[in-house]
Amino acid sequence: MTDFTAKYKRYQDAFEDVLNRFYDKLNVTPEILAESLKYSLKLGGKRIRPVLMYAVGDLLGIESDKLDNFALALELIHTYSLIHDDLPDMDNDDFRRGKPSNHKVFGADNAILAGDGLLNTAYSVLFGECFKGDGYISAAKYICDCAGIEGMIAGQSADLLHENDRTVDKDVLDFIYEHKTAKLIMAAVMTPSILCGGKYYSELKAFALNLGFLFQLTDDILDVEGSFENLGKSIGKDSAEGKYTGVRLYGLSGSKVKADLLAENCFKLLEAPDGDTAFLRDTVNFVRQRIN
Amino acid sequence: MTDFTAKYKRYQDAFEDVLNRFYDKLNVTPEILAESLKYSLKLGGKRIRPVLMYAVGDLLGIESDKLDNFALALELIHTYSLIHDDLPDMDNDDFRRGKPSNHKVFGADNAILAGDGLLNTAYSVLFGECFKGDGYISAAKYICDCAGIEGMIAGQSADLLHENDRTVDKDVLDFIYEHKTAKLIMAAVMTPSILCGGKYYSELKAFALNLGFLFQLTDDILDVEGSFENLGKSIGKDSAEGKYTGVRLYGLSGSKVKADLLAENCFKLLEAPDGDTAFLRDTVNFVRQRIN
Repeated sequence: MTDFTAKYKRYQDAFEDVLNRFYDKLNVTPEILAESLKYSLKLGGKRIRPVLMYAVGDLLGIESDKLDNFALALELIHTYSLIHDDLPDMDNDDFRRGKPSNHKVFGADNAILAGDGLLNTAYSVLFGECFKGDGYISAAKYICDCAGIEGMIAGQSADLLHENDRTVDKDVLDFIYEHKTAKLIMAAVMTPSILCGGKYYSELKAFALNLGFLFQLTDDILDVEGSFENLGKSIGKDSAEGKYTGVRLYGLSGSKVKADLLAENCFKLLEAPDGDTAFLRDTVNFVRQRIN
Repeated sequence: MTDFTAKYKRYQDAFEDVLNRFYDKLNVTPEILAESLKYSLKLGGKRIRPVLMYAVGDLLGIESDKLDNFALALELIHTYSLIHDDLPDMDNDDFRRGKPSNHKVFGADNAILAGDGLLNTAYSVLFGECFKGDGYISAAKYICDCAGIEGMIAGQSADLLHENDRTVDKDVLDFIYEHKTAKLIMAAVMTPSILCGGKYYSELKAFALNLGFLFQLTDDILDVEGSFENLGKSIGKDSAEGKYTGVRLYGLSGSKVKADLLAENCFKLLEAPDGDTAFLRDTVNFVRQRIN
């Protein structure tokens, strides 16, 4: 295990502890609601948003327990978005992280409620500690706006709108990348900055934007080159559905060149903060080279 | 126009002003997202939750501008829940307030996002003024919890779970009534109380619970006796779908007796607060006698 993977695992484990302590609060009535909420959270995944948040927190000197609620809320939001994305009326995806998607197990009706429930619970978690003051509230609102109708939901809507467009317009692709994917990465990276009164605000924001673009572009590349075994979800669906992807605009080899450029941008932007950015740089490489 | 209807209309108009000032913030990209959000909000309806909130605010001496954000957030939450309830995978209802439901106009995929968007925007609105302090935050969290997995969403989940049960169990019916319907009525009534440090907390909470039960029971009665013209939505659907309803448990005439009892409970509970409760008493009668 490299230093990077060991550290990534420490952050992941810290977040799993937060989640494990939280599951009790999901033991609501009816039981099927509780089970459907926990099912998707327990499917796991890379937990890259919480990991990024803790790592930027370390860089800026924010203790992890000050970030736990934000990391939790953000992962709840991310998980709700996957449940709703997979619905038959949306991407109609039967698999997620190698397991049946929420609606395949609990039915589309319960999956709609599970998504609604996770989204609402994210804010219940955040409101629970709003008394901690202005920085806390600003960070909570930032996450909320990144998730919302000028954030992720706008990106999902644009994604639907431009399905089956014959040509791919770069401005539209950039809009979708920024909103559908980068906004929640920005929420992860910017939370610690906002809690520090906006430390390295513009550099970290640009870093998160580039990393979000890189994340979505590698996703598009993997939809062509990846395997179901590694990804745990159906591949080749984006092009079959006429989705707007980087690969359609840049081609497969062009996308890899573009991905390298985005990674370079990230490295440059990480030169701004004082402190040890090795882990964040390794995370960029991890995203660039990921197979799942 | 009676004093009651004139006053009801004043509260409604005040809330429409709040909504009209807010629509600008929904002019997001893509346009279809903006349109789908506004479409369902503009379908109107009784606005009974905002009206109740302002009326209880008047009783407790809270100025309406202190309630605007809460009334707005609550109506956004209520509207999202209608959009998701009407989806083909949920109640599959083609009409709402006499017009095509959201998914009939924009498609189920956009309707899912419109619902998600309104829910998320409710919290963006509330976070926008959290700096106003502890009472504000407690009230915001109360609304959030009433909407959530121990509130309305639990009721919707139980409603699905017990569809097609052969018999109707009173405890289950009470759970569904309390959670699916009464919780958002409680949010409306309790917001002013919480902002006053919990004034008449237990009496108002019991009042809201009884009013919520009355509201759902008259809904069940109207599903049998009402007309599409008045209701603006399909009737007879609940029994066709084997839904848990008061009419199934109490019978039609038994439901009317029960409704009168719930109204009596409301009147008794309104004796507690000092001040003019005439409008709230009339609102109880309005709910009892409503035809839409």
